[in-house]
Amino acid sequence: MTCLAVDFGGTRIKLGIVRDGSVLAHRVIAAQSDQPLASRLEAVAAALEALCQEQGIATGTCDGIGFSYPSIIDRRNARILDHFGKFGDASTIDLRGWSRERLRLPLAIDNDARMALIGEWRHGAGRGCDNCVIVTLGTGIGVSAVIESHVLRGVHGQAGILGGHITLQPAGPQCVCGNKGCAEVAASTSVIGKLAREHPAFGSSALAREDVVDYAAIFRLAAKGDACSVALREQSLQVWSALVVNLIHVFDPERVILGGGIMGSGSVIVPAIQAYVERHAHTPWGKVTVVQSSLGDHAALVACEWLVQEEMEKVLK
Amino acid sequence: MTCLAVDFGGTRIKLGIVRDGSVLAHRVIAAQSDQPLASRLEAVAAALEALCQEQGIATGTCDGIGFSYPSIIDRRNARILDHFGKFGDASTIDLRGWSRERLRLPLAIDNDARMALIGEWRHGAGRGCDNCVIVTLGTGIGVSAVIESHVLRGVHGQAGILGGHITLQPAGPQCVCGNKGCAEVAASTSVIGKLAREHPAFGSSALAREDVVDYAAIFRLAAKGDACSVALREQSLQVWSALVVNLIHVFDPERVILGGGIMGSGSVIVPAIQAYVERHAHTPWGKVTVVQSSLGDHAALVACEWLVQEEMEKVLK
Repeated sequence: MTCLAVDFGGTRIKLGIVRDGSVLAHRVIAAQSDQPLASRLEAVAAALEALCQEQGIATGTCDGIGFSYPSIIDRRNARILDHFGKFGDASTIDLRGWSRERLRLPLAIDNDARMALIGEWRHGAGRGCDNCVIVTLGTGIGVSAVIESHVLRGVHGQAGILGGHITLQPAGPQCVCGNKGCAEVAASTSVIGKLAREHPAFGSSALAREDVVDYAAIFRLAAKGDACSVALREQSLQVWSALVVNLIHVFDPERVILGGGIMGSGSVIVPAIQAYVERHAHTPWGKVTVVQSSLGDHAALVACEWLVQEEMEKVLK
Repeated sequence: MTCLAVDFGGTRIKLGIVRDGSVLAHRVIAAQSDQPLASRLEAVAAALEALCQEQGIATGTCDGIGFSYPSIIDRRNARILDHFGKFGDASTIDLRGWSRERLRLPLAIDNDARMALIGEWRHGAGRGCDNCVIVTLGTGIGVSAVIESHVLRGVHGQAGILGGHITLQPAGPQCVCGNKGCAEVAASTSVIGKLAREHPAFGSSALAREDVVDYAAIFRLAAKGDACSVALREQSLQVWSALVVNLIHVFDPERVILGGGIMGSGSVIVPAIQAYVERHAHTPWGKVTVVQSSLGDHAALVACEWLVQEEMEKVLK
């Protein structure tokens, strides 16, 4: 099976050709997500056609195209339901119609965190484990679950994927989602710069002399003993650890996969969360394993093939 | 179909005969849960036989017996996996073997919150809704979910039912489950007396003159304007509301059913949680409805029939 794969992000769109679980070729184009999606789709199609040509593959011989998109998705109708402040027209577009007309291929689409988990589950760090949860730590916090070999989606497609919007502080700050004190608003790239600058020790910290105050800087300076960075690191690890225990308590996984940009510091994060889970998760059956994602950016691309196949099997039924 | 039904609690064991979704007859015996379960099972069998005799039903003509039990359950092997400080020998007993020998009936068993939800879903406040969550507010907080007509159980039987052990305060107090700052340790009957006595306004509150400081007293006195009771009520409502939003974010339900002893004050609790959900749950598809359970103590009993039927269908497959 050969599929086209598109992974939409806020700043980059990753494109690829996937065959039997491997990415044959891939490239990245700018998202330009302040523009309408309708116009950006033409650039996506052109880039995919160029990629196919380079590989000597006729676009029309592919089995389908899969989209990974950071939103709640109406999978049945291939519609983007939610806003995340990017591609303002996204929810108005008939993606399946576009794909049929422009590429003559069937299209399947699902949420990006769910796609990352599907990719890791079938071909990466979740392989062989039919009960696993992913937590992607990045600009936001993405979550998804596979329970007893079943990708958890829910009737409105939002089961699992709002796991980053679990409240950990009922009286905490307002989140963009409408909820209060969410994990995402307590420890993610979108908020850490602000949290750092608000920290009483920030002024006297080496952090204040960094060009970019992000988790890479915090983990680097914390390792050197910078007090403010250590405090911010510990505070974030506590949020992520408590979130992971919550997800274990609701989804009953055997493995928790951590992904996303912040996992550049995975060598610190994985053992810290594993230790917390062993102390605080209630799992009388045994021990949940915490691991780092292994496919990185390719997880959602390889998941596109699985998604197209799932769609085809449904159509055949 | 006619089934025997047993709902084990910490202080009472409820027994019944259920036919086609209705409780034909029921009675209650003392749990004596400080004693071994092995000896208490004989009292259960004798009470069920007496109940059958009163109804002119030969025990052997029943289709099976269902147990609702407050623990993590290994449903396949009909084993009680977890301790809750009662019936210390529970995990050592072969319940299926006992039922076969003592009553000559097949036995099915599941967790009590899950059974309450199954009962409400098939015959009560969840009827017609194949995406629903229950939260039972009582000594502890029980949770369970039905997602797309599927009772969420998980590979170790603990999916959903540990929802009361979602952390809402990462730095909060230790819970009996091993986790910290769980909803159950922030607002349940097991902790509210202690929380009340620790409240700075307790000494000058009418609560201090109550024989029993429980939620019934708190809601009664709060309605009269007692400041300490109002504070405790609001604090608990915030915990339960945040918990319900968290469960909506992970399970994607259309309806949330509230049950348990504390729901004697349901006329205050339901609208408060409904209003919070409307403000803070991220559900672009529409509105989650919060309702009160309608079957009370009978929910788990009627669920026993469903559970036995499910077990029989599996055996026949």
